[in-house]
Amino acid sequence: MERPLILITNDDGITAPGIRNLINMAKEFGEVYVVAPDSPQSGMGHAVTLNKAIFCNEIVSQSEVKEFSCSGTPVDCVKLAVAHILPRKPDLCISGINHGSNSSINVIYSGTMSAAVEAGIEGIPAIGFSLDNFDYNADFTVAETEIKSIIKEVLENKLPKGIVLNVNIPDVPKGEIKGVKVVRQADAKWDEKFDKREDPRGRQYYWMCGEFVNHDKGDDTDEYALANGYISIVPVRFDLTAHHFLSELKNWNF
Amino acid sequence: MERPLILITNDDGITAPGIRNLINMAKEFGEVYVVAPDSPQSGMGHAVTLNKAIFCNEIVSQSEVKEFSCSGTPVDCVKLAVAHILPRKPDLCISGINHGSNSSINVIYSGTMSAAVEAGIEGIPAIGFSLDNFDYNADFTVAETEIKSIIKEVLENKLPKGIVLNVNIPDVPKGEIKGVKVVRQADAKWDEKFDKREDPRGRQYYWMCGEFVNHDKGDDTDEYALANGYISIVPVRFDLTAHHFLSELKNWNF
Repeated sequence: MERPLILITNDDGITAPGIRNLINMAKEFGEVYVVAPDSPQSGMGHAVTLNKAIFCNEIVSQSEVKEFSCSGTPVDCVKLAVAHILPRKPDLCISGINHGSNSSINVIYSGTMSAAVEAGIEGIPAIGFSLDNFDYNADFTVAETEIKSIIKEVLENKLPKGIVLNVNIPDVPKGEIKGVKVVRQADAKWDEKFDKREDPRGRQYYWMCGEFVNHDKGDDTDEYALANGYISIVPVRFDLTAHHFLSELKNWNF
Repeated sequence: MERPLILITNDDGITAPGIRNLINMAKEFGEVYVVAPDSPQSGMGHAVTLNKAIFCNEIVSQSEVKEFSCSGTPVDCVKLAVAHILPRKPDLCISGINHGSNSSINVIYSGTMSAAVEAGIEGIPAIGFSLDNFDYNADFTVAETEIKSIIKEVLENKLPKGIVLNVNIPDVPKGEIKGVKVVRQADAKWDEKFDKREDPRGRQYYWMCGEFVNHDKGDDTDEYALANGYISIVPVRFDLTAHHFLSELKNWNF
């Protein structure tokens, strides 16, 4: 039987420790192709490159893993991999491990999760992994056992059409993860601040910064799971239709 | 009573005919602020600018409309407007009129729709408008009556928490719009092709191109409405949790 074909990408760039650790964990499950951005692309959401050319080169690899460095966004990487680079449609796409969590509303801003969603749109079972720790040298192996278990389950069961998984790992020391919780996206958001500055030529500019605010008191959310030492898994959809509001909206007087 | 405060943005850039027409239609409903990208940002999805400074300047306006040109993404524009530029939280955010439709899966790639979604995340009633015509000089007034009617309804009724509207206008001559349909997002996608070229220095690069493929035969979709001369309205959500799959996923063996 043919070994599974696994596509790996991320948004922190192809040299980030998070993706290097994920490659290491995934290669026992199949043939691995890496197609990832050549530079950090955090916060790129579901952006695609329409107005610029995309450069993509194979890296001379030191192992059996094939690696391609791409000037595009995380979503571009998935599209280019599927349409052009991979020998066939992959059996799995995994994205990450992201430096910083992509829980709650962050799923929508995250290039890492958008890459997984793009694979889902292409009909490929897909998982995004994120670690709730922004330290460049964080220990990305804390959840190695659980990550491998999740990869194995999805390779075996596939995923239903229209669904990808958003997996977040709590910031706890090795051996202290309490387990895995299947949960919903918390109803939380960012309260933005803009730090206004002046450049040496007197022009005003801004840095976006902000505070994450979680008003959701539920114990069935990703934020709650992470805060209590559990890995959170949210099944994510990309049919954005608010089906529950269709019938009411039909009564509006447009 | 205070006049409604209306924020207008888009992804085609502040000088695009689509937004100029929308400003013209909206100003009878309230006080209008425009905060829009200084250059085209199509396909930017929900990208935010984290690794670059954002420049934003007020344009010397020829009317009572206040206008700000911003170097950031459509989502940046909404965040900066709400956090820094507007005198208070706006009563409505309208985005567009986009050059080209944002029906079906395009809702997820579209900067225009992502700006509306960002306003929704901020708790602001929001609508994205798109015209199914890429011609720079298309007639953006074909649906003026319907656009005004939709703006009026949303100003009066608000929208439920967690929902924004995705409005697409068919490419038909003035007077030939058949009406408005409240519908779901069609299950369609892009089949990408990458056009491989060589630059003058011998480096290979790619242009993303592709074909939109609609396998959805339903007559209750945005694609069906547009193809039959109707304006489509899809209520869009940003809680991406696939709630219908939570209970089954809990039985998986992670």
